[in-house]
Amino acid sequence: MRPLPNTADGNRPGKRAILAQAFAQELAGAASRVEAALETLLPRESDTAIAAAMRYAVLGPGKRMRAFLTLATSALFAVPQAQAVRAAAAIECLHAYSLIHDDLPCMDDDDLRRGRPTVHVLWDEATAVLAGDALQTLAFGILADPATHPEGAVRAALCAGLARASGAGGMVGGQALDIAAETAATPLSLDEITRLQALKTGALIAFAAEAGGILGLAGTMARRALLGYAQALGLAFQIQDDILDIEGDADAAGKRLRKDDAAGKATFVSLLGLEAARRQAQETVAEAVGWLDAFGAAADPLRRLARFTVERQR
Amino acid sequence: MRPLPNTADGNRPGKRAILAQAFAQELAGAASRVEAALETLLPRESDTAIAAAMRYAVLGPGKRMRAFLTLATSALFAVPQAQAVRAAAAIECLHAYSLIHDDLPCMDDDDLRRGRPTVHVLWDEATAVLAGDALQTLAFGILADPATHPEGAVRAALCAGLARASGAGGMVGGQALDIAAETAATPLSLDEITRLQALKTGALIAFAAEAGGILGLAGTMARRALLGYAQALGLAFQIQDDILDIEGDADAAGKRLRKDDAAGKATFVSLLGLEAARRQAQETVAEAVGWLDAFGAAADPLRRLARFTVERQR
Repeated sequence: MRPLPNTADGNRPGKRAILAQAFAQELAGAASRVEAALETLLPRESDTAIAAAMRYAVLGPGKRMRAFLTLATSALFAVPQAQAVRAAAAIECLHAYSLIHDDLPCMDDDDLRRGRPTVHVLWDEATAVLAGDALQTLAFGILADPATHPEGAVRAALCAGLARASGAGGMVGGQALDIAAETAATPLSLDEITRLQALKTGALIAFAAEAGGILGLAGTMARRALLGYAQALGLAFQIQDDILDIEGDADAAGKRLRKDDAAGKATFVSLLGLEAARRQAQETVAEAVGWLDAFGAAADPLRRLARFTVERQR
Repeated sequence: MRPLPNTADGNRPGKRAILAQAFAQELAGAASRVEAALETLLPRESDTAIAAAMRYAVLGPGKRMRAFLTLATSALFAVPQAQAVRAAAAIECLHAYSLIHDDLPCMDDDDLRRGRPTVHVLWDEATAVLAGDALQTLAFGILADPATHPEGAVRAALCAGLARASGAGGMVGGQALDIAAETAATPLSLDEITRLQALKTGALIAFAAEAGGILGLAGTMARRALLGYAQALGLAFQIQDDILDIEGDADAAGKRLRKDDAAGKATFVSLLGLEAARRQAQETVAEAVGWLDAFGAAADPLRRLARFTVERQR
């Protein structure tokens, strides 16, 4: 580990900064294992523009929080790492597809994502639509492949779970609510925005956690605990996103900030205020961690992820 | 059966017309079984605009050739009809998604499909992208559901097969080649257009036939025969599409015709000429039917479908 730089006030870094750097390295380690798998699962760069756009979107910088979740929950049930890494790679493909389509001019119309031009800016809209489409297909293809798990029922359960999380009753349903909110006469209420985010980002985060339980043939109680953890985690993640949108640094975030604020869109911060939103995020993380008691020390990576979720600066 | 009207020249209808009407009824019967399943598999109309758009796209008029293929190949192996209908419904969802996205302004920019306004015209582009996305998800969700087959390995094989047919190495890859061809300096050659169509429409048609074999745990030889049949069928279907684009009736087709011709795009007709294209379609159908010998009379519906493919007027 590289020595930590001194902090701005000249003091040696505190315990919190040391833990944050250690977790950043843990996260990066999981990311690099999943990215190595994605390198071979994605079509070759030279095949077509679609293939190049798919690789650009999936292999670009990213926290890989969903992938980390799948690896960490898989580890609770001693799932072979090769299986966990494939499931994590599939979820990253699904997530990347949703980002490409969300960034389209007819949707959120974003030209910057993680500090780089979005796919439709670098290629064109047709390539962005098709690269997203093919990434969704690839996600299911990876999960359905016998290399992901020897038991067909497990592979099918992974496909069914990903479909539930991603479709009209999950992620796509949440994105539809989000777009509808932009033209609605009144801003969303706290209940409405909580439901929107539970669908738009929460459902896939929850599936990323459940995937470890599915691969590991976990019992009902364990799967219920993982789901409770992940639902709270997803909510905390979204509250922190809204906080960073207000007080964050656009360079660190790699995207335009204060866009929601400028558009008059309701966010957790606009509804609760900054201080109450911060408190809510902390309480939600505590709730997430509370679900992990039954797993003992084996769930420490999931506890660290929960804390990271609200301490991150981007 | 309603009595057939006299033909234009005043004669009583011939054997060919009687057979054609009988097959049209057979096709409509299969379509209504699959549509009844889709009614309950699709989200409720009232849920969201996305749900309404999904239903509009899937439940609109259509030949349901892919659904017929799945039902007819399933019947060869005594697959319970409820299972075959679910697999057929999934494939129709996947097909409908591809049509919604292909019609988008950034792709083929079509405002009419099967005689009705396209989804992005009736709603908007964002709804069209999301409805297509959610239909792809739903297709995999249906196949992965235990109601489709009691064996997990069969459900996973269906998901894997659909992913192979639909992704960057199949349907989406073909659409990408098609879009690239529009701006290419030289029109495609016969080999190139054959490959393009094998990906763009052939791969999903082939999977629709294979699905019956997968559900029915068919042996390797039988599955190879179904694949050979379906690949030839898909090619014949596309040649006939190109013929109808030149000599068809826009009202009957329910879409703009002669668009490829106007755009200077290579088609089987532009490359072969009309007469040779007709011959090629007939020969390809004969090749398709040749693969069915081992199945005996049980494959008669598939033989009728092959003839219909090149005799249809829309």
